[in-house]
Amino acid sequence: MKALFLLFPLLLISESVVCAQEANQVIENQVQTLLSQMSLEEKVGQMTQIDFSLVSVANGQDVENPIDIDKLEHAILNRHVGSILNTPTTPNNKAQPIAKWRNMTQAIRDLTAKTRLKIPVIYGIDAIHGATYTQNAVLFPQAISMAATFNTDLSFREGEITAREVKASGLDWNFSPVMDIGRQPLWPRLWETFGEDVHLVSAMGSAFIRGHQGDDVAAANKAATCMKHYVGYSYPLNGKDRSPAWIGERALREYFLPSFEAGVLAGSPTVMINSAEVDGIPGHANYHYLTEILRGELGFKGFTVSDWEDIIRLHTRDKIAASPRDAVKVAVMAGVDMSMVPLDYSFYDLLLDLVKTGDVPMSRIDEAVSRILKVKVQAGLFELKQPALPVEGNFATEDAVAINRQAAEEAIVLAKNANHILPLSKHASILVTGPSANLLSVMNGGWTITWQGSAEELYPQDKLTLLKAIQQKTSGQVTYVGGQRFSDEINIEQAVTQARNHDVVVLALGENTYTETTGNIDSLELDPVQLQLARAIFAIGKPVILVTFGGRPRIITELAEQAQAVVLGFLPGMEGGVAMADILFGDVNPSGKLPITYPRATNDITPYDHKPMEAFELNQYRPLYAFGHGLSYTTFETSDLKIQQNRISLGESIELSVKVKNTGSIAGKETVLVYLNDEVASVTRPVKQLKAFKKIELEPGQQETLQFTLTAQDMSFIGLDMKRIVEPGEFKVMVGDETAQFTVLKN
Amino acid sequence: MKALFLLFPLLLISESVVCAQEANQVIENQVQTLLSQMSLEEKVGQMTQIDFSLVSVANGQDVENPIDIDKLEHAILNRHVGSILNTPTTPNNKAQPIAKWRNMTQAIRDLTAKTRLKIPVIYGIDAIHGATYTQNAVLFPQAISMAATFNTDLSFREGEITAREVKASGLDWNFSPVMDIGRQPLWPRLWETFGEDVHLVSAMGSAFIRGHQGDDVAAANKAATCMKHYVGYSYPLNGKDRSPAWIGERALREYFLPSFEAGVLAGSPTVMINSAEVDGIPGHANYHYLTEILRGELGFKGFTVSDWEDIIRLHTRDKIAASPRDAVKVAVMAGVDMSMVPLDYSFYDLLLDLVKTGDVPMSRIDEAVSRILKVKVQAGLFELKQPALPVEGNFATEDAVAINRQAAEEAIVLAKNANHILPLSKHASILVTGPSANLLSVMNGGWTITWQGSAEELYPQDKLTLLKAIQQKTSGQVTYVGGQRFSDEINIEQAVTQARNHDVVVLALGENTYTETTGNIDSLELDPVQLQLARAIFAIGKPVILVTFGGRPRIITELAEQAQAVVLGFLPGMEGGVAMADILFGDVNPSGKLPITYPRATNDITPYDHKPMEAFELNQYRPLYAFGHGLSYTTFETSDLKIQQNRISLGESIELSVKVKNTGSIAGKETVLVYLNDEVASVTRPVKQLKAFKKIELEPGQQETLQFTLTAQDMSFIGLDMKRIVEPGEFKVMVGDETAQFTVLKN
Repeated sequence: MKALFLLFPLLLISESVVCAQEANQVIENQVQTLLSQMSLEEKVGQMTQIDFSLVSVANGQDVENPIDIDKLEHAILNRHVGSILNTPTTPNNKAQPIAKWRNMTQAIRDLTAKTRLKIPVIYGIDAIHGATYTQNAVLFPQAISMAATFNTDLSFREGEITAREVKASGLDWNFSPVMDIGRQPLWPRLWETFGEDVHLVSAMGSAFIRGHQGDDVAAANKAATCMKHYVGYSYPLNGKDRSPAWIGERALREYFLPSFEAGVLAGSPTVMINSAEVDGIPGHANYHYLTEILRGELGFKGFTVSDWEDIIRLHTRDKIAASPRDAVKVAVMAGVDMSMVPLDYSFYDLLLDLVKTGDVPMSRIDEAVSRILKVKVQAGLFELKQPALPVEGNFATEDAVAINRQAAEEAIVLAKNANHILPLSKHASILVTGPSANLLSVMNGGWTITWQGSAEELYPQDKLTLLKAIQQKTSGQVTYVGGQRFSDEINIEQAVTQARNHDVVVLALGENTYTETTGNIDSLELDPVQLQLARAIFAIGKPVILVTFGGRPRIITELAEQAQAVVLGFLPGMEGGVAMADILFGDVNPSGKLPITYPRATNDITPYDHKPMEAFELNQYRPLYAFGHGLSYTTFETSDLKIQQNRISLGESIELSVKVKNTGSIAGKETVLVYLNDEVASVTRPVKQLKAFKKIELEPGQQETLQFTLTAQDMSFIGLDMKRIVEPGEFKVMVGDETAQFTVLKN
Repeated sequence: MKALFLLFPLLLISESVVCAQEANQVIENQVQTLLSQMSLEEKVGQMTQIDFSLVSVANGQDVENPIDIDKLEHAILNRHVGSILNTPTTPNNKAQPIAKWRNMTQAIRDLTAKTRLKIPVIYGIDAIHGATYTQNAVLFPQAISMAATFNTDLSFREGEITAREVKASGLDWNFSPVMDIGRQPLWPRLWETFGEDVHLVSAMGSAFIRGHQGDDVAAANKAATCMKHYVGYSYPLNGKDRSPAWIGERALREYFLPSFEAGVLAGSPTVMINSAEVDGIPGHANYHYLTEILRGELGFKGFTVSDWEDIIRLHTRDKIAASPRDAVKVAVMAGVDMSMVPLDYSFYDLLLDLVKTGDVPMSRIDEAVSRILKVKVQAGLFELKQPALPVEGNFATEDAVAINRQAAEEAIVLAKNANHILPLSKHASILVTGPSANLLSVMNGGWTITWQGSAEELYPQDKLTLLKAIQQKTSGQVTYVGGQRFSDEINIEQAVTQARNHDVVVLALGENTYTETTGNIDSLELDPVQLQLARAIFAIGKPVILVTFGGRPRIITELAEQAQAVVLGFLPGMEGGVAMADILFGDVNPSGKLPITYPRATNDITPYDHKPMEAFELNQYRPLYAFGHGLSYTTFETSDLKIQQNRISLGESIELSVKVKNTGSIAGKETVLVYLNDEVASVTRPVKQLKAFKKIELEPGQQETLQFTLTAQDMSFIGLDMKRIVEPGEFKVMVGDETAQFTVLKN
């Protein structure tokens, strides 16, 4: 069978490319000039990233000026550090006022301006779902919820707003987005991903990068992104964070690399590395991944940064290095350009020695430092004498809050709505109960104000929990039976008594906040206390609206069967409460769709794009809710799926059109999902794969014809020889209930 | 770092090798002579294996002579089939009387004797844990339980007895042992494996092969084995049978290939292929695995056979072949020598056509047929004019039953024994309850008398269930509250009432019988009905002995905490009831050890030989019961671990000794487990790996000094370049609580 091998998209030589090449040459010259003037110490310093605590006043008190200038001078002048990260060391390492951030970062800028070569520090921050560590920043739905919007424009806007707020804070660099694919529901960082699908993750992640960086990352309102965690981090075999993955080379190329490739094409200049291991090789020691594939195949030109302490852990944890010194050598030679050391100067000292003894060649140092300097130049840091943006007009703007609210609205998934119980009447009397009903934290998750996101007392007072938002919606009696914190015991007897006295129960369950290893679980089951409450409520027969918040699809099968309605909130962010209430009462028509498969049972974890054998004979595929599932208060009908060219040559694209009509009585948004199946191929193909999607809004009765293009890339897969390939033959396109076929001819 | 690359053990040229080479040449000549006389049709027929139903009288009734001679003549004379499998087609495809088997297979032998070239059919059978399909055969503990004995001699003896009973039945070839490694506890065939450890699976599996085949597989009481299911079948990502595995090349070589390599060295002449896929390539289409690795690296010289219908499924299920014809081509060219078609002659017809059109070269046919003929010659089938053995003295002998009983005794794992509640007094009054208390089937599992093993009514009347065995042990009152079948509802109220009236409760839980896709589950939790019974019993506070039977480690954490004793029976076979009762009452001192990790929670699946990161900081490793765990009624003390040579050269072995003493008051058996850890290596190493074990019996106060050798092979791992390697450095040996170190020097 003749087949088309796909190579990397070659750059067309156009005028703009010539300009870009010239600009690039200017930057390259500037970098090389700098490099030629640098001492070894200055170079090794550039590769060193330290935590703020190393330049902090003692005790980590929450003081006005947390910088210890002597320590800062030591860091910058003696150790020449190239990067600092993290929020100031306070008792809980919490978000800081924006003014303080501006002052702190200014002190660093001022000091670097006094150095010999005036090389700026690049200050990195985990601005996850917004500027996490700046007080009152706009905090969006987390990635899993952004993915549920299926709205790449919203991801782009989140990128824009986040970059602005990062820059207004005086910060330079955002350790976001996560480009890992979320196919392991136990993993405590599932919610930091854009879900289980390759195309969706690529699309949402690239849109974020483009919004965050714009056409010129040096612009005042733009900032550099960092794709993480390259690669395979998201798929721990046992579901625990920072645990081994087993990924074959084909699966790596099929499921894990494409989103990073998309991010490289979108221009993200930095990559953070997988803290765990794949097939026995720690991410930070994997030359094949970090150098051969990332550079050689994906064409990445920026720099790589380690994750927290991960170089030393090659010795202390993974034991693939006999000493801390060996660990540094292994990591640097594998392709780690910058070390998030971050709590001492060991990396600096050890690398200096390794170069002096010839164990690490100067060429490798020059390579890493060039990459780092290039990003600093590209990001305009050399020109930056003060915070790039004023706070006014760039931080927590009304406009940004409105976008955030829209994102929350579009992120919420209406999974079940029996007998049209939703929307609720605005006169309904409601019992609100459950551990997630009256907390902002559970709607925001980790990386909110603090690392674990659990400091409810630090959350903004003007944002509404679900309970408070419901109270504003109905003229009926609203009663709350619940605790102050997620873990507080709920008086079940009282909840049951109150349930009898109200028209409907809003039962808000889910997960407390977490991220990383703190969030490890041993079972996807809901905790028994929540189950007990739910069973007691269901037993009395009142209509129940089950609302869930949390980062993972905890098993709710038994409850979902009994609930009249199920609304999956995941982590909708600071506007989650009002958005959820707007949906419950019909002020917003829900349009979120599941970016993951919602499993029916604890050990029943199979993604939507499974292989035929996973739905063959006794192997049934029957999740609780399928990928892409999400109801609306109106109905949509898909019809007339047409492919323009039913027979194409190898390498050609197809154009297809499909009509979508709002057949209900209210306006609504609908995401049209285009799936493809290669009917026969030399490697088993998924039963279907998402290749394109569009979200539209339709008035009642309105019909729109949507156009899509599927390219040769969309028809390709990783062949027997591990190369991306298109094989001639029949393909099936699926949109809604419509299917159509086309043939790729042998050339 | 200088390192030793390990190559395949080269055969030393000794006298015996010369003899073997000469014998081999004789066989080779015979095969080539035959081949030169064969028509294409006869060759393709040799590669065809059909189910008995194709030669069976209509309706599949349970008749005296189930062979339809016309159909048999068609199969042998027109289609030249090389192999037949399976038990006669009866309403439930059940085991048959041995006399009938002898007659059936004789009819086949008689017919092949009349053919032009007199090539015998090789009759294959799933003689799993004994001659499954021959009535009253000795049915041993299943492999998971055999592994729990940690007694390779018992596995050898099982092989001897099984081969004898297979041959006495007139059968030729046993689709056993499973050499897959059992690291996925959800998988419904976990119990068909020898557990999760590479060394244990290799040791138990090779011992079985050696016992089954002896020094000369052509001997009257020996029969050919078939290693299965090559390779990666046992590790479905989602736990469902016949589902995709993701296995990187290193993991494949580290965990999955060694047991097959051991089986090749032990002389198993046939291999059955993985029905599922690894990294996107179905087992039956994997040239790299079937030809490059199996032949090129493992040195396998025998023939491969497909699993049930798995060639056609490359088209109907996996869609890697555009037609049934393509499926045959792909499979044969990948390295499948014989097709278990088995329900029609499509393979024969299609392959014939493929060769005639030149799509499959004759050289590949000759290769496959030579391999098949060679095994038939080696197995002595050409000389066999009647059943090789008489029934008398070779079937269900007292001696064999005694071995089986010993195996059951050594297979049972005493996991908990609080306050020495066990052994029970022989005067105790006992409530016996729970669904597995009074069934033989639940102690035997699938592949017992029928495929699924669930036909309790067909089980031998003279074997004892746990209940019946307990009744024979105590003079106290024994009351049984339970059903007739596993699924029968148990009267919980009655059980609780009776529990109050007895000294102790024996609560027998577990799983019903199953194998393959039929046994798929969505959760490792025990079913709610069993939990409800258990909770009601525990609530009254009587001492409870929790006994489990079943093929998988279903979650019992909550129950195990409350039970006074926990005894894990797994699938101890036909003598399981008496063996369990002997242990409960102290007539046998338990010595079984867990061949798998028993998980604490549903989604907490991590094997004992995990990586350091899986037990680092918040990633805790805490199974309910660890691999190797198992209590005794006596106590053993390990001391004086000594390594003879603490510094060795690369490639050398070490000798170590350790003292083991029975420090209790009764005789007992103890398995001494020797673990190794390579302290620093270029690839992350497991925290420990089993490298050797010995089981001994000690009288009270008796001490024995055990000697072990650890070879370079034991110190090796799969290096960065995917080659097996030993790296110089420090190694740690662990035996009991003793540890010792040695150094491998750079040469």
